[in-house]
Amino acid sequence: MKKYSFKNDYSEGAHPAILQRLIDTNLEQTIGYGEDEFCNEARELIKKYLKKDAAIHFVSGGTQANLIVISSILKPHESVIAAESGHIAVHETGAIEATGHKVNTIATDNGKITPEQISVVLATHTDEHMVKPKLVYISNSTEVGSVYSKKELQELYHFCQENNLYLFVDGARLASALTSSKCDLSLEDMANFTDVFYIGGTKNGALLGEAIVINNLKLDEDFRYHIKQKGGMLAKGRLIGIQFSEMFRDDLFFEMGKHANQMAEKLANAISAKGHYFLTEPSSNQIFPILPNSIIEKLQQDFEFYIWQKIDDQNSAIRLVTSWITPEEQVENFIKSI
Amino acid sequence: MKKYSFKNDYSEGAHPAILQRLIDTNLEQTIGYGEDEFCNEARELIKKYLKKDAAIHFVSGGTQANLIVISSILKPHESVIAAESGHIAVHETGAIEATGHKVNTIATDNGKITPEQISVVLATHTDEHMVKPKLVYISNSTEVGSVYSKKELQELYHFCQENNLYLFVDGARLASALTSSKCDLSLEDMANFTDVFYIGGTKNGALLGEAIVINNLKLDEDFRYHIKQKGGMLAKGRLIGIQFSEMFRDDLFFEMGKHANQMAEKLANAISAKGHYFLTEPSSNQIFPILPNSIIEKLQQDFEFYIWQKIDDQNSAIRLVTSWITPEEQVENFIKSI
Amino acid sequence: MKKYSFKNDYSEGAHPAILQRLIDTNLEQTIGYGEDEFCNEARELIKKYLKKDAAIHFVSGGTQANLIVISSILKPHESVIAAESGHIAVHETGAIEATGHKVNTIATDNGKITPEQISVVLATHTDEHMVKPKLVYISNSTEVGSVYSKKELQELYHFCQENNLYLFVDGARLASALTSSKCDLSLEDMANFTDVFYIGGTKNGALLGEAIVINNLKLDEDFRYHIKQKGGMLAKGRLIGIQFSEMFRDDLFFEMGKHANQMAEKLANAISAKGHYFLTEPSSNQIFPILPNSIIEKLQQDFEFYIWQKIDDQNSAIRLVTSWITPEEQVENFIKSI
Amino acid sequence: MKKYSFKNDYSEGAHPAILQRLIDTNLEQTIGYGEDEFCNEARELIKKYLKKDAAIHFVSGGTQANLIVISSILKPHESVIAAESGHIAVHETGAIEATGHKVNTIATDNGKITPEQISVVLATHTDEHMVKPKLVYISNSTEVGSVYSKKELQELYHFCQENNLYLFVDGARLASALTSSKCDLSLEDMANFTDVFYIGGTKNGALLGEAIVINNLKLDEDFRYHIKQKGGMLAKGRLIGIQFSEMFRDDLFFEMGKHANQMAEKLANAISAKGHYFLTEPSSNQIFPILPNSIIEKLQQDFEFYIWQKIDDQNSAIRLVTSWITPEEQVENFIKSI
Repeated sequence: MKKYSFKNDYSEGAHPAILQRLIDTNLEQTIGYGEDEFCNEARELIKKYLKKDAAIHFVSGGTQANLIVISSILKPHESVIAAESGHIAVHETGAIEATGHKVNTIATDNGKITPEQISVVLATHTDEHMVKPKLVYISNSTEVGSVYSKKELQELYHFCQENNLYLFVDGARLASALTSSKCDLSLEDMANFTDVFYIGGTKNGALLGEAIVINNLKLDEDFRYHIKQKGGMLAKGRLIGIQFSEMFRDDLFFEMGKHANQMAEKLANAISAKGHYFLTEPSSNQIFPILPNSIIEKLQQDFEFYIWQKIDDQNSAIRLVTSWITPEEQVENFIKSI
Repeated sequence: MKKYSFKNDYSEGAHPAILQRLIDTNLEQTIGYGEDEFCNEARELIKKYLKKDAAIHFVSGGTQANLIVISSILKPHESVIAAESGHIAVHETGAIEATGHKVNTIATDNGKITPEQISVVLATHTDEHMVKPKLVYISNSTEVGSVYSKKELQELYHFCQENNLYLFVDGARLASALTSSKCDLSLEDMANFTDVFYIGGTKNGALLGEAIVINNLKLDEDFRYHIKQKGGMLAKGRLIGIQFSEMFRDDLFFEMGKHANQMAEKLANAISAKGHYFLTEPSSNQIFPILPNSIIEKLQQDFEFYIWQKIDDQNSAIRLVTSWITPEEQVENFIKSI
Repeated sequence: MKKYSFKNDYSEGAHPAILQRLIDTNLEQTIGYGEDEFCNEARELIKKYLKKDAAIHFVSGGTQANLIVISSILKPHESVIAAESGHIAVHETGAIEATGHKVNTIATDNGKITPEQISVVLATHTDEHMVKPKLVYISNSTEVGSVYSKKELQELYHFCQENNLYLFVDGARLASALTSSKCDLSLEDMANFTDVFYIGGTKNGALLGEAIVINNLKLDEDFRYHIKQKGGMLAKGRLIGIQFSEMFRDDLFFEMGKHANQMAEKLANAISAKGHYFLTEPSSNQIFPILPNSIIEKLQQDFEFYIWQKIDDQNSAIRLVTSWITPEEQVENFIKSI
Repeated sequence: MKKYSFKNDYSEGAHPAILQRLIDTNLEQTIGYGEDEFCNEARELIKKYLKKDAAIHFVSGGTQANLIVISSILKPHESVIAAESGHIAVHETGAIEATGHKVNTIATDNGKITPEQISVVLATHTDEHMVKPKLVYISNSTEVGSVYSKKELQELYHFCQENNLYLFVDGARLASALTSSKCDLSLEDMANFTDVFYIGGTKNGALLGEAIVINNLKLDEDFRYHIKQKGGMLAKGRLIGIQFSEMFRDDLFFEMGKHANQMAEKLANAISAKGHYFLTEPSSNQIFPILPNSIIEKLQQDFEFYIWQKIDDQNSAIRLVTSWITPEEQVENFIKSI
């Protein structure tokens, strides 16, 4: 029997309602490349949550969203600032550099960056012998499961505005962030306190797809050229439009995020109750408990998950990721095995 | 009532059998990024048709396939040769140049290129002040609906081998080419007479997805790095694997191509019988009849299609594209309206 | 004994006055990277000829000037329009594509392009599936020795302005163009009817160096970052500043161009008087006489030059290039040998 | 009166013998682009010191040498490892990223990197979601004046060979390194223990020019294409050939380096004798004494130099750079002023 996997939030297909809509609309003819009525419907549904105008574009994945957004904004000599643990800095095979730009990294314990840290980067990049930082990239939730508060995002945004920087938020796991009890942000806040962000579908119950939301409309100029050039424009763009309209018609997007968080919280509470600590404070659907190796080995008999980091000779941190469809029963089984 | 569209072969969703398989497998957990069991099954099923070993990778669209393959092969100073009408030369927003490479173009009436034409390019690129052509790109079927014969492909491949060039075939519409009565090529031939080609799913009844087949295995080195860097690696890679395994389990891929061709042939025969000519010889699921503008205007009342080119003051060439799901009834309606 | 060479205008070192100034200033200490007093002096001297403000930057060669200017102006999806024979289109090893941009080429007999030809390119680049032309590149004199008149340049510039395009002139051989009897342009005109151009030193008696003149000052923003990033910023920037200040202190730049033209004209007149024709009308320091192969073979015994093109079985076009230092005696020897 | 500057080793022109040779050869005609007899002579003279075969190419500056070498070697997904203080990591405006490649940086106190540090980078770059390190870049002397010993270079080279990495040494200040009393390396060692390195002329008494030495000949394939594409191929290539042949005919290159070192050593010894310390151990022609701010202010009245780093409220480190032509008298004046 296959072991149950807590490795990722993209281990299954899509929410059944999404699949059903694909079937229901299957033979309707539409024009291609994201200009069809399904994509337009999805745009309107998302904008109801944003409560403001914005340009919305759909692409198939997170790396694609990141590289298209960043390369469309920066001039050749400009750079993007990110946490050292940021997805673009580590896990995208140099995708940003491949478009010609340096990523200035900031060391951080919790995956988040602050205006003070950005100030240091600016202070050391002062003339034409160095790149010119122009864009700040953060993830919410971050690669280590932490989330930004409304106050933190506001401060970052204001700092960026004062310093002639753009702010871009990678929202591959935005559903989990926005429905986290540790995070007081809404989609409306995301729209108000960023220049661009994207809403991740792939890691929240869609087959694939991310919705790039451009709030600073001057950054939308010719944006479709950039999507096309980088290979991000699906001929059957409807595939993503249909999914996002289904997710934003009646809060399905948030319900899926909430479920993932609840399962993670249940795991975290139980692990904590058994006296174990965490690498970073559990805040979203990725948690990093520190467990004795003996327990980890026992857990590995029935479950799949990543060992994240050696702590000492006896203990390691593991990563557990829950999803929109994680069965409560498996969470309980896991807890029992600790 | 919506007009029936002959604009494209990507106007509808996917073959019902494909959607059903997505539903049937929806909650099975898999690992991500194209290394799951569905992708592996699809690889094995495709290789049965190739009758040889090959590396097979799945990406979401044609521009992505083209830019990943070409940029993975070429060194910075090397170029790719293509027909002036080639998709990479015209309709990919400079995607190849964006990866740093020149496209050397060859003027052509029928969308196809020959060894003699390539010779001319080689003869005029002789030293380090010019780019060094290293790769030949062709499409089958081409952007104007023509197809390569086995003899033509063989001759191109041998010419490339003798001249230290690689041969890459864009197969966005390979299903239509391989099932065309004008084309005697099989998938096995494609594997034998190319270094790399791709099998298009998007334009032949899949939701999305192209299968890149690398026959020259030295070109497969580190290929997954290139896919990831260019944003082409889907987290839920299974989405494409499931579709391709369904298409290659029992000839579904070819049946869909055949249907598209039959509908195009029926259109072409009827149009020809009414005394009209064609811009290029009808050979696949794209045909380009030349019609009086008065007839075109009448047809536009009930159908959607592109006007391709003005011929003279009274006549224009139009483009008609049929698909895996084009209803014979609509073909007959169209014929009646001419 | 070495044969005298008419192959190029960069076969010798530099004008003696330039070398003398290098010696005279050799031990003066200056700051680096083009911000020294010699560079500033050269800027002021050039601006006297421009009769308007402009930003002036020095780089070491023509390909460098072209790639820095073009990549600094264009966004990733934008392209540059050039003659098919343009230096950037043929003889820079894909330097422009290496910075990510397509070169849209225009077929031309005489190396020059017109507003009408550019219109055709614009008319066929209309949506995001194609690159967006944004810059027009011309050379004066062109790669085949032709020159633009003031009227032609004005018309191009106005066309560009009306169509939201920038105009950039490659002036590798600007000295020969501006002092040609076929060309009524001045440096002041160059400043008034272009967005950017460069003044070539390498091919007009300097050891090396081109002066990029940015007339459209919004294109000057952060320009030094682009020079540095592309490796074009010399630590001893003074080397170019000293040379250009020497060339523009007292018309030396123009005198050198004039000498080259006079030698070319003497050659052309004599060849014409002997009943021979030319591939393109002799207009600057590059001429392309068509001669019987028997005469060419005889000339090759005493002179070096390029055979440019076969005309028929008995005749070929050759290229003769004169320079700031071509001895009249060698010109006379050459004429005698015809 | 102008203050004497210890800011740089590129504040003056060139060694008089070099200028004299430029004058002596000025009117000899040569072919262009680095294939002339002066460049070939320089190649042969350098190879006598290397005591082995190598391909030698001349380019105009250090950033250009770095970006051409690195982009010619790496495939799109491959990266280069460098010290955090490395020139390519900090002071080249993202030139390497502009060619598409990430620079993996290593924190270091003394500007040098070790096999152990590289191991850590390799251990954390293990799959296709991350770049693939393929090249190690070091500088000798480094950006903070330190030098590698023969043993250190050998160990690095062997580590690289065992780990399928190339080793490239930036020798912008190689003359100072090789003639340093702290460095036991010769040009022959450089040839034996690197894949590629370059010999800096600009910072050692030439007007401009660096000689790229490719010892691993498979890295020389098509190298001239890369030079041309990146704008690094001077039409009058002789300008660099003449200078390097003059520098390597009779040890002039080493004598200039030695003079710079002697002046730096004299400064360092005197400063040390007065009881002051250094940021890094004085080893080459760049030294970093730590002085009380009061003394620094006094020195600034007569001398120019960079204040490198604040140490505490009373003290700062300054950078003093000596050159091939630094007058002993100015060194003595400086010492007196401390």
